[in-house]
Amino acid sequence: MTEIATASLHTHRFADRADGYHPSPVREVFEVSMQPNMISLAGGNPDLTGLPIGQIADMAHTVISEHGLDALQYGSGAGTPELQALITQIMAVEGITAQPENVQVTSGSQMGLELITKLFCNPGDVILAEGPTYVGALGTFEGLQADIVQVAMDDKGLVPELLSTTIDSLKAAGKTIKFLYTIPNFNNPAGTTLAVERRQQIVDICRSENVAIVEDNPYGLLSFDGSYTAALHTLDPENVIYLGSFSKIFSPGLRVGWVLAPEEVRRRLQLAAEATTICPSVLSQMLVESYITGFDWRQHVREACLVYAKRCDAVMTALAEFMPAGTTWTKPSGGFFTWITLPEGISTDALLQPAIASGVVFVPGSAFFAHPAGENQLRVAFSFETEESLREGVRRLGAAMKTLR
Amino acid sequence: MTEIATASLHTHRFADRADGYHPSPVREVFEVSMQPNMISLAGGNPDLTGLPIGQIADMAHTVISEHGLDALQYGSGAGTPELQALITQIMAVEGITAQPENVQVTSGSQMGLELITKLFCNPGDVILAEGPTYVGALGTFEGLQADIVQVAMDDKGLVPELLSTTIDSLKAAGKTIKFLYTIPNFNNPAGTTLAVERRQQIVDICRSENVAIVEDNPYGLLSFDGSYTAALHTLDPENVIYLGSFSKIFSPGLRVGWVLAPEEVRRRLQLAAEATTICPSVLSQMLVESYITGFDWRQHVREACLVYAKRCDAVMTALAEFMPAGTTWTKPSGGFFTWITLPEGISTDALLQPAIASGVVFVPGSAFFAHPAGENQLRVAFSFETEESLREGVRRLGAAMKTLR
Repeated sequence: MTEIATASLHTHRFADRADGYHPSPVREVFEVSMQPNMISLAGGNPDLTGLPIGQIADMAHTVISEHGLDALQYGSGAGTPELQALITQIMAVEGITAQPENVQVTSGSQMGLELITKLFCNPGDVILAEGPTYVGALGTFEGLQADIVQVAMDDKGLVPELLSTTIDSLKAAGKTIKFLYTIPNFNNPAGTTLAVERRQQIVDICRSENVAIVEDNPYGLLSFDGSYTAALHTLDPENVIYLGSFSKIFSPGLRVGWVLAPEEVRRRLQLAAEATTICPSVLSQMLVESYITGFDWRQHVREACLVYAKRCDAVMTALAEFMPAGTTWTKPSGGFFTWITLPEGISTDALLQPAIASGVVFVPGSAFFAHPAGENQLRVAFSFETEESLREGVRRLGAAMKTLR
Repeated sequence: MTEIATASLHTHRFADRADGYHPSPVREVFEVSMQPNMISLAGGNPDLTGLPIGQIADMAHTVISEHGLDALQYGSGAGTPELQALITQIMAVEGITAQPENVQVTSGSQMGLELITKLFCNPGDVILAEGPTYVGALGTFEGLQADIVQVAMDDKGLVPELLSTTIDSLKAAGKTIKFLYTIPNFNNPAGTTLAVERRQQIVDICRSENVAIVEDNPYGLLSFDGSYTAALHTLDPENVIYLGSFSKIFSPGLRVGWVLAPEEVRRRLQLAAEATTICPSVLSQMLVESYITGFDWRQHVREACLVYAKRCDAVMTALAEFMPAGTTWTKPSGGFFTWITLPEGISTDALLQPAIASGVVFVPGSAFFAHPAGENQLRVAFSFETEESLREGVRRLGAAMKTLR
């Protein structure tokens, strides 16, 4: 009785945007992942077992012992100047030329995405995105009441012609398009990478149509063969706002990401950031600085990528063995994910409960679309489980499919 | 030329709410604070010199050595269960009875405030606040396009009769009031504490008028004499949403705060939080856990309060000596701030530059109001500078006033 009264006391006061913060099946999936003996093909957690834990502990000790009064105090809303400078060096690996003052440090790149959406999008403004796209981006966009329009990909990533025709028809319908949100490298969830020959085309389309590009690139350095593709930002630094993250190349638990943006945008992002968290954690930033300057982080990334490559291989082999005829999947050359398309008529939403009962959990394809789609698709993450577990997980998935039919 | 082109490229795309993220004179003040030989009466930084830095360094080493794979990984969007439970113990000091599952951990309590505003306020909805109020809250409210209406305080805090008449006239004008934002203890910037006899009145008014209360209480444990006042939350746990913070009792650099809210509200706050930062820093949370369980944090707070009490005394004495006749100021019994009212006709905005030229910086009164007010008022923070510096700062302030007239 009291609980009902309490709920109605507040819920009728909620803003319109509260509807965008709705519970999702994905949340349930992540909770199920914690169950003992459950194999999770769901979460995009990085493998941290290769990190030099002892050295990081020593670094934390040194940072606090020698700079504790700074590390534990409020800091600049833009981030520490030292980290801003280091971030430009990291981006230089992918060909980006940037000034430290154009870097806004955030509490993870999710926050960068949230700030950008807040800064650019009125309710009803259109955000273009790949179909499928990052489920967390959908949550942010929906919470801020943007209208999400997804453009199909093929195995070379976003299709420029479809982007053009989508923009044309939106404009014909009188819509205001604010930006294209894209994950060009080792896309989450698709596992595909935007082909080099399409990059200039997409940048040109967006520039001529007056649509900004938000390039989300947490996986760019995680290629299996050590090669890097030049970021979209290198092709149009003025029109491309770039999101980077330490979550996949170092640690997500520190919550440190960044936005690279032209000065007027970066300055506003800082004001919006200060209104959200005052400043990023100074200790987290100083730990990242210590790690990047005091450790061969690129070697760690290379070693982690070898692990991910083997895990990806294990999944590819298992899929060939255990998936029903007619199933297809993407062949990632980096990152954490492959995207699986089952034969028509198999619903991955319906598959989820039997799969969980069989001891494996995944994220159904529908989670990666703002509107109904992806019914017979699903994402498999190979970043966190061992090769043996991944194989067993795919086997359980195949077994669950048989019970479904 | 390029810079101008870049600015216009993006600025015409900004959302309406971007106007709310405007540069403020306060930002300039905080930058000036960093200048050598500048005495800052501006910032509300806690004094950290009493912290056991060596022990905290050891704790960080232990957390990472023993739990690194958890501390550096993604965590729960609600916060760690251990910290949720510890936070209920901290709130119990002020008489609050709470369940861990009603605690939402945030990246500082600023983020809690932002999430609450996002969840409750459509553009144009009214937020009631004290006049003056926390400048950072104004930034959050303005960014989310709420309509801020401030209610005057006297030396016993918010005046219940004025709250009632303000609500009446807003309702008569057809306005939708979502919540009262209040800092009842050692108010920032006023330095006053809401009298006990007014607390039930204010809680009753809000309940009967169907207005939620957002109780922001970062300073509640920082009384000079060690006494605590029961939180508003204790008087109406259903209608009061409570914000707490480790920034003033431990460390702001870790960015750990919390919201205590009824279940339906807390659940939505978690969804909004996940759309903003995915999860709070796990390392920061585990460090707070170590500190609270492994160290006599209440003794540290008591000792810090003795320092703050002496600094407050030094400011009181200096004000009596150096301020012009007709000046009044509040007499805080805790917290970080005193609020000064100069004789009519002295503009503290105009005073700022001469003061900076004299080597002292403060925040002018106008910063603490959403609409023009506070012209002859200013905030003095006594939390961070030494007694000697505070005295010298007030002396410089008095000298600067003479040049003004």
